[in-house]
Amino acid sequence: MNDTLQLLHDHRSDRAFTGEGVPDAQLDAIVEAAHRAPNFFNGQQISLVVVRDAERRQRISALTGGQAAIAKAPVFITVVIDFHKTALGVQLAGGSQVIHESVEGFAVGAVDAGIAVASLIVAARSLGLGAVPIGGIRKDPQALIDLLELPRLTFPIAGVALGPIAQQAPQKPRLPLSSFRHDEHYRAQGLQDDIRAYDRTLEDYWRALGRPEGKTWSQAALRYTKVYFPETRAATLRQGFTLDK
Amino acid sequence: MNDTLQLLHDHRSDRAFTGEGVPDAQLDAIVEAAHRAPNFFNGQQISLVVVRDAERRQRISALTGGQAAIAKAPVFITVVIDFHKTALGVQLAGGSQVIHESVEGFAVGAVDAGIAVASLIVAARSLGLGAVPIGGIRKDPQALIDLLELPRLTFPIAGVALGPIAQQAPQKPRLPLSSFRHDEHYRAQGLQDDIRAYDRTLEDYWRALGRPEGKTWSQAALRYTKVYFPETRAATLRQGFTLDK
Repeated sequence: MNDTLQLLHDHRSDRAFTGEGVPDAQLDAIVEAAHRAPNFFNGQQISLVVVRDAERRQRISALTGGQAAIAKAPVFITVVIDFHKTALGVQLAGGSQVIHESVEGFAVGAVDAGIAVASLIVAARSLGLGAVPIGGIRKDPQALIDLLELPRLTFPIAGVALGPIAQQAPQKPRLPLSSFRHDEHYRAQGLQDDIRAYDRTLEDYWRALGRPEGKTWSQAALRYTKVYFPETRAATLRQGFTLDK
Repeated sequence: MNDTLQLLHDHRSDRAFTGEGVPDAQLDAIVEAAHRAPNFFNGQQISLVVVRDAERRQRISALTGGQAAIAKAPVFITVVIDFHKTALGVQLAGGSQVIHESVEGFAVGAVDAGIAVASLIVAARSLGLGAVPIGGIRKDPQALIDLLELPRLTFPIAGVALGPIAQQAPQKPRLPLSSFRHDEHYRAQGLQDDIRAYDRTLEDYWRALGRPEGKTWSQAALRYTKVYFPETRAATLRQGFTLDK
């Protein structure tokens, strides 16, 4: 076991930001971790927008529906799928880009965005900072696109709020490993038992935290009975990701 | 600067696998890093399929069009977007899942898959192993779905080959930081200059490696003038990700 593994195994999503700032050198090192991160085909179809301005963070917090962490954390980084940059490269080489119209292109961009999110979070946590991924920016993507002045062929798919924290969050239990790791091939059998067991684990977890109203995983999964951020599709299409190829 | 930051900044995609195996305890620790990784809404919409069997790895290598790294690395991990698991949770709570039909659902799954990919790679590299992300599994997704016995509402979106390596790969230069990091809002100005400068950097890089036929970034970007993996969309739809919501 090494420090990096320990950090990865000890992951928690920290939101108890003190409001103190992050030194420039630390922020540079965190951004560099994402800049150096692996990406598919060396396409580098990712850009970051680093927001520190308090009023902008307030506006981003508002468009997520009021997530306090974004306003409180000194740094909010939006991870952007960027096929504008690649289109310029294609153009310089005399071609015309098509990939952004495809499910393949969106898949590559979104997976690379996840790689960037993880790199930012691991880097921040290695410095003793707290960090939390934010999906809520997709509640009103158009407002964020306007605020960050994002060009066509880009899409703000995820965010990370980070900064010094007052105390670490408790580590939330996960579904049993048997429902996550499959050897040689997928095993569908036993999944329902795993979920039932996890529901009990989460009940105990919430009770121990003094929050008996906390939902089981199954109850929380009811959010998936509807498209909780219906604007994602419309904004994606408007930005040129037509998904029809 | 700490060990973790150093590891992140020193990223390289290693493919020079010796063919030696990975001890079970190391593999367990690598998988645990992905299991504990952050995910959106605690949905845990990811599963891994760990393949060590040599014949299976050979078959996966073949369906990517013959990527040697997959056959040579002792471990190949497929990262699967898994809305089958969440659908069971929804069902247990008395609901019927809709999210997998939406662009939002696919986005969440793909970003979480990227987080898992990064977690696996960072964990493996912290143990001195080499690791490389593999997008080529989307060349023939249906064949992989069949081989891994993946149920409906799941999709194998990315892979990671890992194992002991003979020597580290050189670190490939990235586009200038100015084209990656934007402060407060996106700056489209200067991107073309950044790309031209990077094209020169890559020419020098390939020349120094004795591979003067290596492509510039712009030239390589011509792959984006077509959908190089056209089966991604058809297989995604077939698995139930209709993307129409």
